[in-house]
Amino acid sequence: MVFWSFFFNNTKNEYYKKNNKETLLITELNHNNKILKVYLSFENNINMLELEKLCDTVGWVRRPITKVKIALENSFLIISIFYYNNHKKELIGFARATSDNSFNATIWDVVIHPEFQKKGLGKILMNQLIKELRYHEISTITLFADPQVIKFYTHLGFLMDPDGVKGMFWYPIQN
Amino acid sequence: MVFWSFFFNNTKNEYYKKNNKETLLITELNHNNKILKVYLSFENNINMLELEKLCDTVGWVRRPITKVKIALENSFLIISIFYYNNHKKELIGFARATSDNSFNATIWDVVIHPEFQKKGLGKILMNQLIKELRYHEISTITLFADPQVIKFYTHLGFLMDPDGVKGMFWYPIQN
Repeated sequence: MVFWSFFFNNTKNEYYKKNNKETLLITELNHNNKILKVYLSFENNINMLELEKLCDTVGWVRRPITKVKIALENSFLIISIFYYNNHKKELIGFARATSDNSFNATIWDVVIHPEFQKKGLGKILMNQLIKELRYHEISTITLFADPQVIKFYTHLGFLMDPDGVKGMFWYPIQN
Repeated sequence: MVFWSFFFNNTKNEYYKKNNKETLLITELNHNNKILKVYLSFENNINMLELEKLCDTVGWVRRPITKVKIALENSFLIISIFYYNNHKKELIGFARATSDNSFNATIWDVVIHPEFQKKGLGKILMNQLIKELRYHEISTITLFADPQVIKFYTHLGFLMDPDGVKGMFWYPIQN
């Protein structure tokens, strides 16, 4: 991950700030005997059908596209990872965060295409999302983790139930 | 709680919709040998100093008012409970929710003035907040509960760690 190191770890916040809406080359991957240049972006012009396709690859229940569009419009940050296939963007990673733009953020819909998992992309995605939220001085970054990804988030520095604080859910099905 | 029953439980959604930005009489309480009329509102014109004073009563760490103002401006819903003392609003309950306006909401800063706790106001506050979020078709309502209030939220229908989903936190202090 040559580019990752160049673009992020060794650069100043000012550089990052200036470019945080840009498309950044983060790594090169060997995929099916081709070298793919993989990019990361905070741009919010996500193609809804591409996003649905990506979510399908990990088996998520389909959601009405109009509702997804509203959710994205009202997310504080959207992050995506993609490569170009004959000049067409192929979306392979995504996450978003809701926030009060001040104290708290909650991360939702973290997804990496199965063919591109276990290559460090999820870690890059999350670290950049955290860095961006920190840049906005959000001090409490939260998420709700399924059992199989708790370890992944723990490695990124997330704490489970700190001081006994519990994540709780209210679903309409109950009432 | 005569008025509570009149205004909420037996009314139609349409009535609620029309009035959800209004001030609603929810109950009458005997407080220091005076009968107080207690009101609930979803209006977002919260007095920052009043809110700070309320948070002080429950011992919360003070937060910069400018940041609190931004947080309120970027909250999806704000709910408050108050009474009038010589025509001056006395804030005795508060909560807010961030949301993507579509699927998820997260409830923050739930507070009831200690002198008005154990009178059912917290339950009214939360039930109205849930009702309003449901009215906006938000299906996943979440919060992070301190250990001492887990039982309170459980009684309201909140589930802790459903299907092993864990609330996780990232704090800047770690890195």
